[in-house]
Amino acid sequence: MFKTNEYFDGKVKSIAYTTAEGPATIGVMACGEYEFGTSTVEFMTVTSGHMQVLQPGESKWVTYKEFETFKVEKNVKFRVKVEGDTTYRCLYR
Amino acid sequence: MFKTNEYFDGKVKSIAYTTAEGPATIGVMACGEYEFGTSTVEFMTVTSGHMQVLQPGESKWVTYKEFETFKVEKNVKFRVKVEGDTTYRCLYR
Repeated sequence: MFKTNEYFDGKVKSIAYTTAEGPATIGVMACGEYEFGTSTVEFMTVTSGHMQVLQPGESKWVTYKEFETFKVEKNVKFRVKVEGDTTYRCLYR
Repeated sequence: MFKTNEYFDGKVKSIAYTTAEGPATIGVMACGEYEFGTSTVEFMTVTSGHMQVLQPGESKWVTYKEFETFKVEKNVKFRVKVEGDTTYRCLYR
């Protein structure tokens, strides 16, 4: 019923679901640094732990804490660093 | 690496992870009503949608919205109703 996806040898795992406003995922990342690509605008909300984020074209990492949200533009790559298991919700718009 | 669990024929699905303070899960529930049992104190936070909750011994359902948290005592059963895909984070303490 709910589809799971794994990335980076299972170090990132997510479950897809649906909201009234469009598709969404919840997921968890193990300690590490990851690059993700977007195909829609994404609104990422940290739901456990904290996340360092490098937006495309930027040189400064920004840290987001629990229940803070950042937006990533469509068709770009962005980088994320986490120091321990960190969870997120992602809305695709 | 991250273990998933399914309950109620897959209508509830979760991913287990670890925090500095103990074990945790993130999960999603499809539209429906569910009864869960606890074996520790649980702190449930709604992360998408909203959730009606019936605590043990209570007769009144209480609604929790996005980023609101409720506590459930150890070794009890509680009921949850959701009207559409609804996500949560659960901390076991």
